[in-house]
Amino acid sequence: MAQNIYDKADFFEGYSRLHRSVEGAPEWPVLRAMLPKVVGLSIVDLGCGFGWFCRWARAHGAKQVLGLDLSERMLARARAAGSDEAIAYERVDLDELSLPKARFDLAYSSLALHYVSDAARLFATVYQALVPGRFFVFSTEHPIFMAPSNPGWSVDAAGRNVWPLDRYLVEGPRTTDWFTKGVVKHHRTLGTTLNNLIQAGFTIGRVEEFCPTEAQIAARPELAKEVERPMFLLVQARR
Amino acid sequence: MAQNIYDKADFFEGYSRLHRSVEGAPEWPVLRAMLPKVVGLSIVDLGCGFGWFCRWARAHGAKQVLGLDLSERMLARARAAGSDEAIAYERVDLDELSLPKARFDLAYSSLALHYVSDAARLFATVYQALVPGRFFVFSTEHPIFMAPSNPGWSVDAAGRNVWPLDRYLVEGPRTTDWFTKGVVKHHRTLGTTLNNLIQAGFTIGRVEEFCPTEAQIAARPELAKEVERPMFLLVQARR
Repeated sequence: MAQNIYDKADFFEGYSRLHRSVEGAPEWPVLRAMLPKVVGLSIVDLGCGFGWFCRWARAHGAKQVLGLDLSERMLARARAAGSDEAIAYERVDLDELSLPKARFDLAYSSLALHYVSDAARLFATVYQALVPGRFFVFSTEHPIFMAPSNPGWSVDAAGRNVWPLDRYLVEGPRTTDWFTKGVVKHHRTLGTTLNNLIQAGFTIGRVEEFCPTEAQIAARPELAKEVERPMFLLVQARR
Repeated sequence: MAQNIYDKADFFEGYSRLHRSVEGAPEWPVLRAMLPKVVGLSIVDLGCGFGWFCRWARAHGAKQVLGLDLSERMLARARAAGSDEAIAYERVDLDELSLPKARFDLAYSSLALHYVSDAARLFATVYQALVPGRFFVFSTEHPIFMAPSNPGWSVDAAGRNVWPLDRYLVEGPRTTDWFTKGVVKHHRTLGTTLNNLIQAGFTIGRVEEFCPTEAQIAARPELAKEVERPMFLLVQARR
């Protein structure tokens, strides 16, 4: 069972004010480039949050979108954002997900999989829910970002910003404070994530470690540090 | 053109005394588990060094092995290790490699690819040299190990060994001193390495980030730190 931090009032208020919640995520152009054309597709969004991607997919011609999330608050806001008979929202714990067989053309997930404790189980569930040949595209926190005992910048003797990596090869839960205390994420190495996909039957199509563009850094100078270590891992796989 | 450090006297003497040169590499059991059975196979070894793997493959039933290396000194020692008509050694710069089409069942490389400046070119060359369905198995320095401005351990305020990661997303040459001054390696992110393979036509079969086993740490306590960050990346891919 995954932790439901998004329904905690302090978390929800903080998260709602995040730059990415308001103006979109900097990694979205990379994730978008990994997607197939969504026209006519049946899509499931694992961890849909406020339903932004569900609405985007419908606006770009998707046939049907199923948005799944653990948070009642997020789903309430998603439902309040507009009614569309081709979008359905359901409350689901991704650690207990079941889906019909060969039902979807695209499984999408943005920054939810690091909350899932059993990724191998989830990937097997997603695999059987896809039509053969179709896509699974997701972003997740990068394991380099998630691994450290102390996941914050430090400055070395030469004045450089460095990311103090440790415990990269020690998989398991990581507890941090992010808007609320005791947020639990599940650290897996990049190798484990890819091997879990391959073992579920997927073919790896593309692996991106998010790096801001020069234009993004010019517009938001605080992104400059992001070249030192990747914050997000983005993967396209195919059944 | 790759740098030929292995023919520099100081490097060669230092390298020859390395623990791994004498008693075998700690990542070898993981790499071995990624190999197909070599009985009857035609194999090319990219960066064969002293020819250890060439001899191992022949001892395990390989039909033919072509060992390629840039270093005359390494090749001389490989040739001196014993004559076998089914092993041929050739001096080759991997940055300028050409190979016959569909000639090999296995392309193998141990810790040589980080010296190659144009990995995409090499992967395309290897792909066309393999029989369809056959394997490319390699180890390389992990990009987490190679990226930093200052690639050495530091100790944080809590007394933990941390790896001061920076410049992970800044690809290009990295110059370090290792037995000799000015050793040039070519940093590529893990995503770039995998995407280069996929673009060459390969299917990714397995991705391992080397972690010592408890037995290895018990036998060589200096390996304990290796759980903090991966030193080696090991990949199995298939044409």
